[in-house]
Formats: sequence, structure tokens, C-alpha cells
Amino acid sequence: METPGFAFEVLHQSGMARVGRLSTPHGEVETPAFVAVGTQATVKSLTPDDLEEVGTQIIFANTYHLYLRPGADVIAEMGGLHRFMRWHRPIMTDSGGFQVFSLGASIEQGVGKIASIFPDEAPAPSPPRRKPTEGRSLVKVTEEGVEFRSHLDGSRHWFTPEVSVQVQRQLGADIMLAFDECTSPLHDYEYTRQAMERTHRWAVRSLEAFHASRPLHGYPQALYGIVQGGAYEDLRRESARFIAGLPFDGLAIGGSLGRTKADMLRVLEWTVPELPADKPRHLLGIGEVPDIFAAVERGIDTFDCVAPTRMARNAGLLARTLDGKRLPKFRMNMRNARFKRDPRPPVEGCECYTCRTYSRAYLHHLFRANELLAYRLATIHNLFFVNRLMVLIRAALLDGTFEELKAHWLNV
Amino acid sequence: METPGFAFEVLHQSGMARVGRLSTPHGEVETPAFVAVGTQATVKSLTPDDLEEVGTQIIFANTYHLYLRPGADVIAEMGGLHRFMRWHRPIMTDSGGFQVFSLGASIEQGVGKIASIFPDEAPAPSPPRRKPTEGRSLVKVTEEGVEFRSHLDGSRHWFTPEVSVQVQRQLGADIMLAFDECTSPLHDYEYTRQAMERTHRWAVRSLEAFHASRPLHGYPQALYGIVQGGAYEDLRRESARFIAGLPFDGLAIGGSLGRTKADMLRVLEWTVPELPADKPRHLLGIGEVPDIFAAVERGIDTFDCVAPTRMARNAGLLARTLDGKRLPKFRMNMRNARFKRDPRPPVEGCECYTCRTYSRAYLHHLFRANELLAYRLATIHNLFFVNRLMVLIRAALLDGTFEELKAHWLNV
Repeated sequence: METPGFAFEVLHQSGMARVGRLSTPHGEVETPAFVAVGTQATVKSLTPDDLEEVGTQIIFANTYHLYLRPGADVIAEMGGLHRFMRWHRPIMTDSGGFQVFSLGASIEQGVGKIASIFPDEAPAPSPPRRKPTEGRSLVKVTEEGVEFRSHLDGSRHWFTPEVSVQVQRQLGADIMLAFDECTSPLHDYEYTRQAMERTHRWAVRSLEAFHASRPLHGYPQALYGIVQGGAYEDLRRESARFIAGLPFDGLAIGGSLGRTKADMLRVLEWTVPELPADKPRHLLGIGEVPDIFAAVERGIDTFDCVAPTRMARNAGLLARTLDGKRLPKFRMNMRNARFKRDPRPPVEGCECYTCRTYSRAYLHHLFRANELLAYRLATIHNLFFVNRLMVLIRAALLDGTFEELKAHWLNV
Repeated sequence: METPGFAFEVLHQSGMARVGRLSTPHGEVETPAFVAVGTQATVKSLTPDDLEEVGTQIIFANTYHLYLRPGADVIAEMGGLHRFMRWHRPIMTDSGGFQVFSLGASIEQGVGKIASIFPDEAPAPSPPRRKPTEGRSLVKVTEEGVEFRSHLDGSRHWFTPEVSVQVQRQLGADIMLAFDECTSPLHDYEYTRQAMERTHRWAVRSLEAFHASRPLHGYPQALYGIVQGGAYEDLRRESARFIAGLPFDGLAIGGSLGRTKADMLRVLEWTVPELPADKPRHLLGIGEVPDIFAAVERGIDTFDCVAPTRMARNAGLLARTLDGKRLPKFRMNMRNARFKRDPRPPVEGCECYTCRTYSRAYLHHLFRANELLAYRLATIHNLFFVNRLMVLIRAALLDGTFEELKAHWLNV
């Protein structure tokens, strides 16, 4: 990695997949790793102690949300995100780009990967499916940057690569992302190319702003570039080569990954081989179980996703099987009446606090009664579950049993 | 106390106030003690570990709510409340009477003490202030018992002293309460007398049902009687003498405590001297700081109240002073803009987890962003605060400095 204080070491390679160690000023991350999402400087319902107990190594916070509330200046004044939220391990922040395009307007189209890959888990407000040219966007993109409206109060704001770097300096995450324009599967080839080329010019400006600025909180920060290009092979390859050629500390894959899982896999297969082997690779917004296996075997080191934590708040517990039967979506619905009198642990064999302590009947009751404790207990389980899966995947890569592990989990 | 397995020992007397020790099959309670409310088998947002960390000795659950959801039979099947919710210290349950009258109908009047003593904290739905004879009550009281409708689905249910004891046997709390009719400050003398006399007949039936039944979960349960009589001196004295004359394990003071704090104090002054010195005394629904001092010095041993936990969910942190100034209502509003950039602990000098760990600015942000973590952190503080106040009160009673402590807190 380029920035002093950071390092990425590939400890083991197995096909495209690798086991690595990412070193940051706030400690190390064993990769491949899941990055828990803490949008508003809190992983919803959990304390940092809870996060450590479930094995979380690194979290992801959203620049757009924190810029609007409480304000990046407030967090800077409080000593940065780590001190503000009392999480003393690594943090990543995004550039604000994705939310500017998905939330920063009266959203007039389906933007980005969440809508395409997690149709059941799409963020509110749900974007109506119209063509980008229909409807009047409240997001105005120019060469200089993007004007958008706050989803909180409608106030107007202006983001540029320089503003994004400055805001992320104030937030003080270990890893920052370069400002990008996020396109959707509904954008055509021509627009996707224009947006990609603009993102490339913004990448150069982000690096300049990065080097022209200093960390504010007494430790260095790294900057990752973002590969765009939609679901078009030539664009993805071109973008990957361009971003890979810049002196970023790591590379992220963003924007539209297409409309289907197969599209996403192709995007990874086009993109990753163009990236340098010695830099960490982050995949934005992926985290369902099959996607984790697919991303890891295509050479991804870290990925963030709201799915495990959002699913928890909707009474979904991650599990591979239920009472001996496979769960194709890896999800138990704790509101289901079958659990009303079930004294067994929520997920049998799971060693998380929730499964060690409570019965299915109790979790069912808490969710039916809309009790606050339900959200925390389910979130603890789901993050523990994903982090535990990553431990299994790292071990399997090291001892050459990744294919068996994958077959066991995906039944393929 | 009458039931084997229970004991109450007065360790020290100071005027009417006393320091005691209540022994139950699930451990001891140092009195005077605050009983945290866990209506639906959960103290909202906290785990049992959290409850222990904040010094909670005993919790209170609501029979009416648990009978309707998940059902007392479900909790019985799961081994009782302690096992169901994984709280292994003492539990009290109420008789269901209060909620039958306050929630079990399209509430047509202000019922009971919460509406009168906590006007800002009245439970939803807020009762319109009409006379009991106006409107059509959906609660039907007969000599046999009470018919009511579920506030969840409108279904009809039937509670009697015998049903209440049976349901509380299923729940398995250490301390159960006898079924009573709860009157409001709007009931006139004549109706209050009739209801009190009916409550007395129900008290006798409750004791009979108690002795005719057996604990279901392998440990004994105690039964407290409830003194009624509204805000009328002759009725309160008569009720106290009647209930005190029955072989209950302890005595609770319920029903309307009048319309003002002064009324409540008078009710205590009429009632407590009529109660036996060797049995524990519980005051239902009281828990604001001035009320705690008032109840303790009038001889109350335990009291339950939703105020600290509900206030926490409304962004109110309990504190005596803020930045050197007294808080007459002992409440800081964490949503207040003054806290936006305040790096200090929420309540300076407080040793709870929340105040040891986070800033005012962070709590302010969490409440403004409606983040789930806010409710837990504030609840931890408020229960720690009340439990700590009870430690101070017990110590002050033992070393003869209660008046100084009270003056320090109430500035009187």
C-alpha cells in the first residue's frame, strides 16, 4: 500500500482467492473479511463491545449520512469517528457518492447494486423503475461535482472529489474512498461510459486532494480508488486498468454490478484480473452467503453489506439449515408461528451470545411484541454468523478445502 | 412472611423508614429497592446482563400483557418467566387488575396513578377525561370477576381472582399480587367503597386459590395483598386493616393515589401505619426522585415504576444537576441542541457504562438519528441512576443521614 502506516500482505493464494492481512493504524484485519455497516456512526443496536464479541474486525460508515447529521465538523471536533463512537479498530468510509445518487434526490431510478442484488432488502425509499431520462432528477452532475438535496430536510449540498476527501479527513476513517459517480443497471452504455470517464477524472482529483491535505486526528489515512463501468466488459476492464494505474492504497469495485447474480460474477471476472496483486480489493455492498463465496473465489479481500444487520431487524436470523433442512436463502423468520413454543436455541450449534442464551420461543415473542431487545439479539447472531463464516473460509483457503466448504454451504 | 422460602427482615428502623432484606427463592433484595419494569418479559432494550450491571435486584412483569402475548401457557411450557427471559434474580408479577382496567377496554376514563402522577408520561392510548358513567365501558365488572377486551386484537377475556392466581402460577414470579379492582381519581366515594369491598372479597378468594394451587416450576411463590380505597382516608384505613389481617406474605398499595403528590403522601400516611411492621410493603407505580424519598420515609420497602425506563426512550437522562445547575425534574433532554458538540460524559461523575464510555454529543446524535443504541444507553444510565440512589438512601438510613441526603437531592 502507498500510505505509510498501512500494509497489505497476501499470506496465501488459492486460484484467484487469497488469505491476507490488512494493517491499519487501528489494528489488523484478517482477510477475506466482512465489513459491518455502521451508517450513522453506530452498527444499529450494538455497542463496540458487542461488535468485538461477535468478531467484527472492521466497520463501514457512510460519509453522506454523517456529513448531513451530525455534521463532519462535529465529528472532527469530537476527535474523529473512532473516538466519537468508541470503536478503536479499523473503520472505512465511503465517498458519499453512492448515497448522493441513491438518497440525495427525489430518487427517480433504481441506482446501484443494492436494488439489483437485494430486491427484498432494498433501502427505503424504494426507487420506481423508470428510465434515467424520465422524471426530473434533483441530483445535478457536472464536471466539477454533484449538487444534491438532503433526504432529511431537502437542503441543497455540493459534493466534489475535494469535498469528499475533506469530509473524510474530518471523519478520520482509516480507509477513505475516492468520490465516484454511481450508475445503475438502467443507464445505457453511452451514459455509463461518460460517467466512468468522469469518475476517472475525479479519481485523479481525489488523489490530488488526498496528497494536498493532512490527517486531522494524529494517524494516517489510506485512500482506495473505485472501479466503475457498469455491467459492460470493455468499460469494466478499462476502468480497472485506469484505477489500478493510479497510486491508490487499495481498489474498490462499485456501481452497478448488473441485474442478476450472473452479471455480478462476470463483472468480478472482468475486473479483478486487471487489479494489482499486492493491493487490497474491496467489493461494495455484497454480503449474502452465496455472494461471499463467489466474491472470495474471484479474489475479493473485503466487502461490506447491510444485509445481515438489516435482515436481523426484520426478524431474519442467518442459518444454513433449520431442523435438518437446508434454508436456500440462509434465513429463519423468527416471527413464524412454528417458533412460538420452541425451547431450542435459535440456531442450533451456534456459539453466539444470543444462541447460547435464549430460546426460539423467546426471540419469537420479542419480535412479535416489537421489543427493542429483539433487534440487538438478532444483530448479534447475524454478525457472529457472517464473521464465523469468514473464519471458516480463511481456514479452508489455507488448508486447501475451500471447494468442500463451498459445496457444504451451497450444496453444489 | 407466611410462605416457606421467603423472609423479610427489618435491619434498621428510622422513623417510619426502614432498611431491610427480602429473601426469595431467587435471591435477596436489599430494601428500600426500586423494581425495574419488564412488562413483556424484557426490561425494554436490556439483557439480564445489562440489568445486573446497573444494579437491578428485582424486576416487575405484567400479567395482563404476558397472558395475552405470548400466553401464560407458553411461558409455563418454557419453564416460567425466569427461564424464558434468562433473568435468575427475583421477579414480581402484578395481578392483571390494573391493566385490565386501563388497557383492557376502549379506555373511557383516566384510570389509576400513572395518569395522575405522571401526566407527561401517561401510557398510550391517552384516556379522555370523562366521568366513569359517561361512555360505554368495555370492561364489565361483576362479583365473580372482570370481562375485558384485549388491546391487541379486541378478543374477549375473563379474569377472576382464581384466574389471576392460576396465570401467575404459570408465569412463576417469586412474588404474585392478589387480583384487585383498580379505581381512578374520577370515581366517587360510593363507587370507590363498593370496589374496595369487592377487592376485599377477591383478596380472600385469591388467598384461597393460592393455597389450593401449587407452584409449577419447582420453587415456592409468595402472594401479596393489595390495599385499595382511593384517596379517601376512611376507606384507605379500612382497606389497610382488612388486607393486613389476612395471611398475605406482603402488602401492596394500589389504585388511585389521588390527583396530586400531596394526595399520594396522605394516602401513604393513612395506610402504612395500619400495616404490620414485619411484612414487606410495595407501592405500585411510583418512581420519580421526590416520590422515592417520600415513599421511603413513609415506610415503603419496594416500588416499581416505568418512569426511568420510559423517560430513557424519550431521550431523558436522570440527573440531579446539569453544569452546576439543579434540574428540578431530574431530567436532561439529550435531544437538546446544546449537547450537539458537548464532549463531556452525559452525566458528569456518573459511573454507569454509558457515562463512562460516551459523550453527550454522541448520545445527542444517536437520539436525533433515532438510532436503536440510544434507547439502550439511556436505559442503562437511568436504571443505574435509580439503583445508585437506592444505595445512597439505604446507607443514609443506616448512618442517620437520611435528612441530609434528602435535602441535598430535593433542596428542601
